[in-house]
Amino acid sequence: MLPRKPTFEVTIWNVKLGGGNPIVIQSMTNTPTADVAATVAQIKELADAGSELVRITVDTEDSAKAIPEIVKQLHTLWCDVPIIGDFHFNGHILLEKYPDMAETLAKYRINPGNTWQDNNFKKFIALAVKYHKPVRIWINGWSLDKKLLDKNMEKNAKWNGVQLSRTKKPEPKTPREVFIDSLVQSCLLSIKKAQKYGLAKNMIVISIKSSDVQDVISATEKLSKKTDCPLHLWLTEAGGSTKWLVASAAALWILLQQGIGDTIRISLTPEPGKPRSLEVQACKYLLQSMGFRCFQPLITSCPGCGRTSSIAFQMLAKQVSDEVQKRMPERKKKYPATAGKPGCEKTKIAIMWCIVNGIGEASHADIGIFFPGNMENPGVPVYLDGKAYKVLHWDQIFEEFMEIIEQYFESKHSVLC
Amino acid sequence: MLPRKPTFEVTIWNVKLGGGNPIVIQSMTNTPTADVAATVAQIKELADAGSELVRITVDTEDSAKAIPEIVKQLHTLWCDVPIIGDFHFNGHILLEKYPDMAETLAKYRINPGNTWQDNNFKKFIALAVKYHKPVRIWINGWSLDKKLLDKNMEKNAKWNGVQLSRTKKPEPKTPREVFIDSLVQSCLLSIKKAQKYGLAKNMIVISIKSSDVQDVISATEKLSKKTDCPLHLWLTEAGGSTKWLVASAAALWILLQQGIGDTIRISLTPEPGKPRSLEVQACKYLLQSMGFRCFQPLITSCPGCGRTSSIAFQMLAKQVSDEVQKRMPERKKKYPATAGKPGCEKTKIAIMWCIVNGIGEASHADIGIFFPGNMENPGVPVYLDGKAYKVLHWDQIFEEFMEIIEQYFESKHSVLC
Repeated sequence: MLPRKPTFEVTIWNVKLGGGNPIVIQSMTNTPTADVAATVAQIKELADAGSELVRITVDTEDSAKAIPEIVKQLHTLWCDVPIIGDFHFNGHILLEKYPDMAETLAKYRINPGNTWQDNNFKKFIALAVKYHKPVRIWINGWSLDKKLLDKNMEKNAKWNGVQLSRTKKPEPKTPREVFIDSLVQSCLLSIKKAQKYGLAKNMIVISIKSSDVQDVISATEKLSKKTDCPLHLWLTEAGGSTKWLVASAAALWILLQQGIGDTIRISLTPEPGKPRSLEVQACKYLLQSMGFRCFQPLITSCPGCGRTSSIAFQMLAKQVSDEVQKRMPERKKKYPATAGKPGCEKTKIAIMWCIVNGIGEASHADIGIFFPGNMENPGVPVYLDGKAYKVLHWDQIFEEFMEIIEQYFESKHSVLC
Repeated sequence: MLPRKPTFEVTIWNVKLGGGNPIVIQSMTNTPTADVAATVAQIKELADAGSELVRITVDTEDSAKAIPEIVKQLHTLWCDVPIIGDFHFNGHILLEKYPDMAETLAKYRINPGNTWQDNNFKKFIALAVKYHKPVRIWINGWSLDKKLLDKNMEKNAKWNGVQLSRTKKPEPKTPREVFIDSLVQSCLLSIKKAQKYGLAKNMIVISIKSSDVQDVISATEKLSKKTDCPLHLWLTEAGGSTKWLVASAAALWILLQQGIGDTIRISLTPEPGKPRSLEVQACKYLLQSMGFRCFQPLITSCPGCGRTSSIAFQMLAKQVSDEVQKRMPERKKKYPATAGKPGCEKTKIAIMWCIVNGIGEASHADIGIFFPGNMENPGVPVYLDGKAYKVLHWDQIFEEFMEIIEQYFESKHSVLC
């Protein structure tokens, strides 16, 4: 486990963020908030998938009115995931006009650059103080205080050719560097202002938004050195299809690897028909493959090559992978982590396709299986805890392998208890 | 552009690798090599998608015999991607028995741990020298020289409680650290051996394989400090679905960000029916989002939220994204990069869904469009080079927006010429 940069602990309803707590996964709905049924259903879907905080937009009076009913209905479904209100432009007005909404939300989120004027930000913070709610402040490049940026650009430009003092000045920065510095400065100023308006430091979470991978990294690295507030990481508007996944994972990874980041979101442009919870799944894979958290047995499997009769193996690998994932909620209840020892979610499963890496991966996983390449051998060896356990044959191989997995969990569980 | 660690340049047929050249994308077929038609078709698919090297397995006599015919057929299709032979166990025998195959391949790949004995590795290298072919040597944990690992473990264990000299010894390493060090040491020994057997240093590419993200990173970081040979990066057996993508991107990213890596592969367990070239696409997204190379216009788009009537926008974003990608080969010919100035692949397109980030992202992209959130306004503004250009309406929006994109490329092209 890599060391983490110390931050304040912020409590959001029943979730603790920062202060050495596990990195929290969050997501956001895309249903109209005023559509209570649709929003409740999507929040439930996201929470069931593993989203530990769910953000919803509160952009209109109708959406503000819907919040208490949404949370009430979630509670009847035994879903107590903290709901975060996402405000823009009119947040201070809605929070004042709808106290039930203000009370029901677990946290508020605001970009000071989207409050139009400082007085509105002040009112917003005062309402957060009144209702004892933590606030996430986020800054992005396009709503950055233009005066601040212009001032910094001008100050930087003066270095060109003009010697302001007798001591040697550093080289002028590039416009990008000034932009990054201004983003960080704007975050720090906003934290200071929020504190001035009455918000305690352990009620503030901070984040920097940019759709540029290298900008997110540079700015967040700098910000992290200058504040103890917990940091929310994401790559915004990362686009659709494969791109968002590759780009988001890359940006989050380099920050998390340095110990930066207390909560994450992978922000996905959903393709029609695909579930919203795919972004939650991606967060889980990211945190688990990096060794930060454990959610479900990780399956290592071959990319396949000319040494394998691939279709049958591909089908089986996918079938096992889907089934292992599907059975997780039930399994977690059946075989929980006991006395600090791992539950079934820490199990490593390897599904390999030929002898080249097969024996190695299969025998170094908790549960391993490797197929006979191009059918040169009809037997399919299964390894448990590094030892050859059984040879399966092709008939009923899926059912038999799943049974072995179940038996393995059961035996480990009884050892633990 | 981040600085890159200097390495030797290795020439593989018509591709230069290392020595400051752009990071090369590679992939591998999963057809039986002896099936010439299927293998030719898949190599062509991978090369067309952007794979600059393609590896195929040479595991049997039939596959060895097929190689010259495969390359001949590829050349008649105007496909001259270098073909790399992937050898295990019997490489030295096949290369000797089939000189046409040995001559036709552009590079060989071998794991010294899979040659059973050192003499076979010696023969293998001698054949590479004879045919003037570069070799990629790869080492993985499971085929690591057991004697070497045992010796290192033993040496390390002696530190426990036993003071070997009067000077203070460092703490003993963890077994994982010894394992990582042994991987690196094994790579360096293999490079040395290959040189001893006659291979020039600028004919060697090296890589470390592991299915554990943190192990790949630690070992490759250490190796990079100790060799000038170009490094191939990948995460092996990264699994299927979302996991491989997240995990691979993460491991590759942190190494590339440090300037390490001259060629990459993202190793994917394909789902049935999905094209093999998806892994090539992922490499392109990875390199482009990090700012290393440029392949096609990158589309920034919203994740969507309750502020947007999402389905229609999702459809359009996907439609535009697919169309932009589809037209790339034709466009690259029509609007190439001229006199060092960017071609159309450097264009940034933003497709945004409401006012909150819409104006900002749209006006900071080369081509931007933002939709009216929940239809509060029937107009859809388009920005070009940061300036409001036109307002589109919903009828024919896809066709009109694509026409604007084409016009933009054309105008930029005529400026450049």
